[in-house]
Amino acid sequence: MQLAALRTSRGETVAAVSAGGGWAVVDGATDISSLVSRVNWRSDADAALASGRRITGADALFANPLPNPAKVICCGLNYADHIAETGREVPEFPTLFAKFADTLTGPDADITVTDSTAVDWEAELAVVIGSPLRHGDRAAAQAAILGYTIANDISMRDWQSRTLQWFQGKAFDATTPVGPVIVTADEFDPADGAEITCHIGDELMQRSDTARLVFDAPALVSYSSGFTALAPGDLVLTGTPGGVGLGRKPRRYLADQEVVITRIAGIGELRNRIVLGDRIITNEERHES
Amino acid sequence: MQLAALRTSRGETVAAVSAGGGWAVVDGATDISSLVSRVNWRSDADAALASGRRITGADALFANPLPNPAKVICCGLNYADHIAETGREVPEFPTLFAKFADTLTGPDADITVTDSTAVDWEAELAVVIGSPLRHGDRAAAQAAILGYTIANDISMRDWQSRTLQWFQGKAFDATTPVGPVIVTADEFDPADGAEITCHIGDELMQRSDTARLVFDAPALVSYSSGFTALAPGDLVLTGTPGGVGLGRKPRRYLADQEVVITRIAGIGELRNRIVLGDRIITNEERHES
Repeated sequence: MQLAALRTSRGETVAAVSAGGGWAVVDGATDISSLVSRVNWRSDADAALASGRRITGADALFANPLPNPAKVICCGLNYADHIAETGREVPEFPTLFAKFADTLTGPDADITVTDSTAVDWEAELAVVIGSPLRHGDRAAAQAAILGYTIANDISMRDWQSRTLQWFQGKAFDATTPVGPVIVTADEFDPADGAEITCHIGDELMQRSDTARLVFDAPALVSYSSGFTALAPGDLVLTGTPGGVGLGRKPRRYLADQEVVITRIAGIGELRNRIVLGDRIITNEERHES
Repeated sequence: MQLAALRTSRGETVAAVSAGGGWAVVDGATDISSLVSRVNWRSDADAALASGRRITGADALFANPLPNPAKVICCGLNYADHIAETGREVPEFPTLFAKFADTLTGPDADITVTDSTAVDWEAELAVVIGSPLRHGDRAAAQAAILGYTIANDISMRDWQSRTLQWFQGKAFDATTPVGPVIVTADEFDPADGAEITCHIGDELMQRSDTARLVFDAPALVSYSSGFTALAPGDLVLTGTPGGVGLGRKPRRYLADQEVVITRIAGIGELRNRIVLGDRIITNEERHES
């Protein structure tokens, strides 16, 4: 089954499900997080597929399927080739950092960045939590995974490298696209090795497969649940393969109006235009000049 | 004016205000974030002080005043003496990381930590945002500050040092106490140099004053607003002075049942007992043994 948030021609964003033959709106589900928090969400979804209001392609656009997760946990350095391009060793523990819900944006949204000259791409598989988990082992973590979606951890390398902590370069509002759909775990297993790619326009920048993660999805979910409770709708970003702009010789960053296309076979694609805004001049700077 | 969340003998948590002579409940304010989001919250608070339901001390306990901020931004390495004890240089930019709302807990709550043997203290001044801010200069940031409270960024140093990113050692659920009250910015200015201390039981561990921050409150708020929108109820933790357990020779970490007392003159104190839980054994480990 697939789940998505659809912006319809009526102007609404609705939670919808698909079994491969078009989208059906689930009654009373304002968003995917609240839908999958229902104990019997799958029977509600099946009922919608059987008899719910249908939305046809031309009537809908995909929105960010998870606009307000309480927790977005991100893993860095989780593909061997990306670890190598940063000059580091394969780690014993996952390297984790957090994003805010505001950092996320839609699968086709323009990404506007002001005040950075080193905007880089990071294609990633994202894990969506479906049921509460705390101190879960690998099996419990696997069972708590609702499904998978795509993200691109767009990173402002100049800000990221200002200090020891990456957070500020990865927390610019509305810069991490997510979507277009969530494919449930019974239909998509990253261990099967789905191709993950990132293109800038027509140019292939990253290509790997989801079976090459150092810490796989249940490992990351289990580990994270060791220090914090996970809840339906929470996201775990699993890290990016080699081929980012920072790792290239010479380095290559995103230019204004370039389009980043992030694909995972079996899930779909994100397509985001980069808009490099003018740097904000503060009142203080105006007063100084 | 002071603001607090009070647990009353009726079992409620209510948002209340004080002008130094007891606490008054503000009608219809379920929490402090929603209270200060009102355009005219100060007149509502004044009305409550004049004629609202009174709560006397024996009837109330302080709860976490901000149980659900959308954003908790923390600054590391922000007192010269703490920077020195970590062996680093005074930085050009603030070192920032994030916590989840779930990381926070109340001013008198027990702090239960499982699976860490290096639990350390970090007394901190915390800034509470009172109005929306994005790309704000220093003056705008100052105007967006509602007030100040106390936090202790309890840190699991073993987890913190596992990888390059500190996040996992600082994001254990319910380990960062906050409170007991928020003192509004018209009555408390950290630049005046309020004493900040941390005791373990009777033993003084940290003592500094809030005027010694490398990046002061408006600087941190302004800088953070350069990449993310801040909203009423968001928190910015300003970093800790020297004297943490990690910086001592020999190192000194918190033992089970020790009480951490964190004080800032003019705001109050946090008093939190440490409970070192047994390490969680996963099902997998049980199966292996």
